[in-house]
Amino acid sequence: MFLQDKPHRRYNILTGEWIKVSPHRTKRPWQGQRENSSGEQRPRHDENCYLCPGNSRAGGVQTPDYSETYSFINDFAALLPNTEQNSVDSRFFKAESERGICKVICFSPRHDLTLPRMEEKDIVKVIQLWQKEYKELGSEDFINHVQIFENHGAAMGCSNPHPHGQIWADEHIPDLPAKELENQKSYYDENGTPMLIDYLNAELESRERLVIENDSFAVLVPFWAVWPYETMILPKKQIQSVSDLSAGQVADLAQIMKSLGIRYDNLFQTDFPYSMGLHQKPTDGKDHPWATFHMHYFPPLLRSAEVKKFMVGYEMMAMAQRDITAESSASILRELPSVHYREKN
Amino acid sequence: MFLQDKPHRRYNILTGEWIKVSPHRTKRPWQGQRENSSGEQRPRHDENCYLCPGNSRAGGVQTPDYSETYSFINDFAALLPNTEQNSVDSRFFKAESERGICKVICFSPRHDLTLPRMEEKDIVKVIQLWQKEYKELGSEDFINHVQIFENHGAAMGCSNPHPHGQIWADEHIPDLPAKELENQKSYYDENGTPMLIDYLNAELESRERLVIENDSFAVLVPFWAVWPYETMILPKKQIQSVSDLSAGQVADLAQIMKSLGIRYDNLFQTDFPYSMGLHQKPTDGKDHPWATFHMHYFPPLLRSAEVKKFMVGYEMMAMAQRDITAESSASILRELPSVHYREKN
Ligand SMILES: O=P(O)(O)O[C@H]1O[C@H](CO)[C@@H](O)[C@H](O)[C@H]1O
Ligand SMILES: O=P(O)(O)O[C@H]1O[C@H](CO)[C@@H](O)[C@H](O)[C@H]1O
Repeated sequence: MFLQDKPHRRYNILTGEWIKVSPHRTKRPWQGQRENSSGEQRPRHDENCYLCPGNSRAGGVQTPDYSETYSFINDFAALLPNTEQNSVDSRFFKAESERGICKVICFSPRHDLTLPRMEEKDIVKVIQLWQKEYKELGSEDFINHVQIFENHGAAMGCSNPHPHGQIWADEHIPDLPAKELENQKSYYDENGTPMLIDYLNAELESRERLVIENDSFAVLVPFWAVWPYETMILPKKQIQSVSDLSAGQVADLAQIMKSLGIRYDNLFQTDFPYSMGLHQKPTDGKDHPWATFHMHYFPPLLRSAEVKKFMVGYEMMAMAQRDITAESSASILRELPSVHYREKN
Repeated sequence: MFLQDKPHRRYNILTGEWIKVSPHRTKRPWQGQRENSSGEQRPRHDENCYLCPGNSRAGGVQTPDYSETYSFINDFAALLPNTEQNSVDSRFFKAESERGICKVICFSPRHDLTLPRMEEKDIVKVIQLWQKEYKELGSEDFINHVQIFENHGAAMGCSNPHPHGQIWADEHIPDLPAKELENQKSYYDENGTPMLIDYLNAELESRERLVIENDSFAVLVPFWAVWPYETMILPKKQIQSVSDLSAGQVADLAQIMKSLGIRYDNLFQTDFPYSMGLHQKPTDGKDHPWATFHMHYFPPLLRSAEVKKFMVGYEMMAMAQRDITAESSASILRELPSVHYREKN
């Protein structure tokens, strides 16, 4: 089958973009940049970490002595709630003011943990906090989209190893979710069913790109994956947003997030860097029955804890490109042990 | 003016995408990853470099004893010319085989040079080689797009410091150039003139985002720039491809490329990393009168030789974001000395 061993391009039904696959090219030598692999052991509490309980932050604020999760307005927020309305709209120069709220979400008081090394019951608390924030931020009149995400690891521009994620809540629906919504809508208009649920059913049948599953969710390497070990978490039944998850589904999501994270860490026996994020129903008050809640994981590592895939020249000027196929990545992830390499024995 | 100091979004007329600007946020502290800044002195000839004249490459091929420029088929090509035609086209799984040719372009036999430290007359030879390759590759029946680019520096995934670039010539026009062509076409259909020429005239009038210019070209930070010091080189008169450049225009392009490169290196007194690429008329045999030849420079550095901008979580899930405005970046670049910091005295 040409998809296994011949150069080809694949179509991403979610974004409407193509990606280039060069399966014959995996043995290319690498003399380029090497990442620092993070085998470091961190202390449970770090005096110099502004996210650890009781320490002080920028502007002299004190982080409270929290014992589970903790969220606060980003001290260096990219968006502010009180920006005056403004715009320019000439032929070449089109811009408009943008209001928003940026928050930081601490996953745990413990400085030394990461999501895959937290207990499931504590990941449940993170998801519950996402639910609360999505609802609260989304209920603000001027917030039409809530982007929840995590940058994990120095290779992904994370500036503090304390387990945390972020939320950027926006006045306008950003381009990428807008594109995904548009494609989900076209499909729904044509078929009357949510695209991502139908897609998952096709993947569950083939099982070629399936990594793990439980009662409520499945993890797969999407057919059109760009990053070497990119995955998506998809719900088995239509759910529009994190706040629609039942208690049982929250527990299942915690279980599958942990299980995926363990496989990622085990892949190169390292604290695996990634950016992860939730896509869901906008908070613009409209219905969006086509919008299916899902999570994207974009991890950069390619061959080892030190060698990542660079999305540079060709990718920046032309289109995304990958060497290893989605099917090989899925099979590699699937075969990995389900116990974290640091917990062995 | 809100564009200077308030959070806003700007529209990219070339791609049709929005980008988020947070001008109030430039003083954010940075405790994240630091790049190795490349103050290293390299030898004129490196025995272990497979791009230096006379050394041997992968597969035992010998790089000839070239004295100006040198191009060859990439030993680890992402695309191959002889891939059999093939496709799948089901509802969720859409893919097609892709033919192509990937080449490496050595800019100089000297291992220790970079484009901004080469003489203009030698940069002219690089542009002449681009002209030749664009024509030759483009004349192949199955090649419809020729992407010329350079990944410069380890931070941009470049695996060998020998001055070189690449060409990936494709069967299909890739997504990004296709989008740019579409927007240029819409504008042309409406106005009867090439969009980028009209845009440049507006920029030449305002001069706010202009960095440098000569008789044939101008460098500017586009209104919708994403990377902190992103620039575009635009021709002052309509030119569709690199092969349409007259000898005088080639000399002017060499002059402005060198001049821009010197400013980049001077900014943080380092061998400034970037990905650079040419966008031009596809080689599909059609006319494309709206297509204007231009070059994009996407450099990652933000605050110093060590601190780069990461396009991660929010940017991967939602949309591009920058802190410093295009206007400040242009004024910083404009004020830099025009003599390379390593050539002083
Ligand atoms: O071809 P190279 O230099 O080995 O590789 C570099 O450029 C390619 C084209 O932009 C990218 O796909 C690679 O990720 C990057 O490391
Ligand atoms: O907000 P942080 O963690 O300081 O910054 C990180 O995440 C942001 C949102 O993805 C990016 O814009 C920054 O480039 C990155 O370094």
